[in-house]
Amino acid sequence: MRRLLSGCGILASQGAGFTFLEKGWLGICGDTIDYIGREKPAGVYDEVRDMTGLLLIPGLINAHTHTPMTLLRGVGSGLALQEWLFDKVFPVEDRLTPEDVRVGTELALLEMISTGTTSFSDMYMMPEETARAVLDSGMKANICRPVQCFDPEEPGEKNSRVQESVRLYDAYNGAGDGRLLVDFCVHAEYTCTPEVTRCYAGLVRERGGNLHIHLSETKKEHDECLARYGVTPARWFADLGAFDAGAFAAHCVWVTGEDMELMKRYGVSAVHNPTSNMKLGSGFMPLRELLDAGINVALGTDGASSNNNLNLLEEMHLAAVIHNGFRQDPTAVKPEEILKMATVNGARLQRRGDTGELKVGKKADIVALDMRSPHMVPNLDPLALLCYSAQGSDVRMTMVDGKILYENGRFYTLDAERIRRSAQGCVERLYR
Amino acid sequence: MRRLLSGCGILASQGAGFTFLEKGWLGICGDTIDYIGREKPAGVYDEVRDMTGLLLIPGLINAHTHTPMTLLRGVGSGLALQEWLFDKVFPVEDRLTPEDVRVGTELALLEMISTGTTSFSDMYMMPEETARAVLDSGMKANICRPVQCFDPEEPGEKNSRVQESVRLYDAYNGAGDGRLLVDFCVHAEYTCTPEVTRCYAGLVRERGGNLHIHLSETKKEHDECLARYGVTPARWFADLGAFDAGAFAAHCVWVTGEDMELMKRYGVSAVHNPTSNMKLGSGFMPLRELLDAGINVALGTDGASSNNNLNLLEEMHLAAVIHNGFRQDPTAVKPEEILKMATVNGARLQRRGDTGELKVGKKADIVALDMRSPHMVPNLDPLALLCYSAQGSDVRMTMVDGKILYENGRFYTLDAERIRRSAQGCVERLYR
Repeated sequence: MRRLLSGCGILASQGAGFTFLEKGWLGICGDTIDYIGREKPAGVYDEVRDMTGLLLIPGLINAHTHTPMTLLRGVGSGLALQEWLFDKVFPVEDRLTPEDVRVGTELALLEMISTGTTSFSDMYMMPEETARAVLDSGMKANICRPVQCFDPEEPGEKNSRVQESVRLYDAYNGAGDGRLLVDFCVHAEYTCTPEVTRCYAGLVRERGGNLHIHLSETKKEHDECLARYGVTPARWFADLGAFDAGAFAAHCVWVTGEDMELMKRYGVSAVHNPTSNMKLGSGFMPLRELLDAGINVALGTDGASSNNNLNLLEEMHLAAVIHNGFRQDPTAVKPEEILKMATVNGARLQRRGDTGELKVGKKADIVALDMRSPHMVPNLDPLALLCYSAQGSDVRMTMVDGKILYENGRFYTLDAERIRRSAQGCVERLYR
Repeated sequence: MRRLLSGCGILASQGAGFTFLEKGWLGICGDTIDYIGREKPAGVYDEVRDMTGLLLIPGLINAHTHTPMTLLRGVGSGLALQEWLFDKVFPVEDRLTPEDVRVGTELALLEMISTGTTSFSDMYMMPEETARAVLDSGMKANICRPVQCFDPEEPGEKNSRVQESVRLYDAYNGAGDGRLLVDFCVHAEYTCTPEVTRCYAGLVRERGGNLHIHLSETKKEHDECLARYGVTPARWFADLGAFDAGAFAAHCVWVTGEDMELMKRYGVSAVHNPTSNMKLGSGFMPLRELLDAGINVALGTDGASSNNNLNLLEEMHLAAVIHNGFRQDPTAVKPEEILKMATVNGARLQRRGDTGELKVGKKADIVALDMRSPHMVPNLDPLALLCYSAQGSDVRMTMVDGKILYENGRFYTLDAERIRRSAQGCVERLYR
């Protein structure tokens, strides 16, 4: 199947940046982009699709989330962190069934697909449920089974959580023609022991995948690690070998200059979660410093219990403005940097070198945005428009591997009405 | 005409806060709410409208904007403030014709009405064009003619700008059955002389209206006023009599504790413009302190050249999270406070005691939001959902004085396609 998208704006990759084609053509052969240009290509295409008034951008990549937590959206809002987590979130999580995790994931997929996300990195329990939902939906995801020291057993190969993580890797890594990848996960320094962390670092070295962690999210976490071990969380992870074979770290709000040097040296990616960091009062990631240090920074929403959305365009918007405010500098972060964080940097973090850009030879993971909404007029600067004005609801089409998953309000792989009803059922049971 | 809205969620006023009716009835007689309750009212209604799946909230009030600047959306993004303003914005503004101001306003009205705004406070040149567009659209607005010292003449009754302001007041204050109100305006301390400010303060005392000003938006402005006059901008305005007869101040980022005492004493309202303050690098308004000082704080978008949207739900979202991040306190601002800022506090600022709340006897300025979108499920806490999850695109109906202006993507008073085409024409001329 060869498909040609015609008459649309295209934000294509050019060198390390972007170029804007005002009225361009984009050809797709199977799951791959085979043409981008201002002229109609010579080849024969089975379908020519008029995309006038739309802007094509790379599919967005949500590099850190907990998808099933959509069922906890709005729980304990306005509480302090400890109260929120221990009194509100954990008791509900204790009651979650595999069915809840499946439905919570599906609710998340509806929101992500319809707001332009084509791939995400997830961290949650019962990840097989998430895996199957993702495979059925046509999306891409990196999933993992987090370990926390609430998990009682000793580390080692016979530990049931370790076995679970390895089983997940063997069963799902590369599934769905590579749409699904499996990572390993240590939840955070403050929830894990050195032994557990060393064990998981070994799993990554032996099996592959990345280590997905939370890092220096709060000042408390960062300071308590210093008090406990005399080193920062980043140094603690590095010393345990956790950065040796590929890792990425969510939040990184309180990382120090030395932590950044470590991350750079080991090639550890950082994930910025601006809404969550704001809403929970965690603070401001040193985004400018991380980018200047040459660290790969991607963008994530975190879970719907602390965001409370999974809308990456909203996240881009927040990331694009809050650092200017915090640094009192309107030039602190550039729209181009924000778009890269939400696309190609996320692809790099996910070990997906074949996506995250509109470029010949890359996978056809493409999002089309409506440029005719009142807030998208005039188009004087497409990158600025995308970061400061665009809304998740401007997404008119979401395509993964050349397959259209969503178009003009209609989902092709998910039954939105069934999922909404199921979610309502889960919620009534969980909170009664 | 009596109309009954049935089967919907309602965020009605109760005392100083809100109460949530899960499946309520709201009756409208002419332009006024005449019933809110959980049971069907006894009266006879000409129309019963099934609103199942929707949430009714008070119409949102955008308390500080410059509507015609939609035509400058995205101009000079990423530049420092002075460069952006003097090299990019002012040269375009110099070329604006009355037709541009009319079309720019209309483009703004499309965006505001479709994202739930029912009234706004505007500050821009050629306000007669804005006045006429607002009257035709069915919206409400407080407009004014700003004076700056770029305006060359001496102050006094024969000054042409003063005459313009007075003519605007006489022609439009109370027009459209009170939908239009006229304020007076001194742009800011740093753009006006004491004589001009004293003259306009006198106009407010004689005629009525409020004085609409910019106050301590940037540290530079605040510090330079101290250097120039030895007092803060708030004290400068107060000493010139500008606060004597009603005033409201946009931004208030750098106001001091003493400034807040002054504002409280004179009943000066503050307008929070979080996106603009972030994007332009102005800093963080001391929102918690202003609220704790008992000052009436409303919410505004500022113009589309510094936001770059006119979407008050997005502004609520930003206001609801950034102060938690800045203060490292997840309880810094409550959703209830944010919703009041966006509604009843704005009504108070606009001298519209008859709106801003869903309450029997208030004007039927009502917005209906779709609660069935994936990101609005589950509804565990309607106020949290509204502040942290809702999107402008969730608006399904916008009603002003009992008249539906917008419903399910359709504008009843504005020709969206004609406005979009006209805006395109203006832009091509302005930027060629």
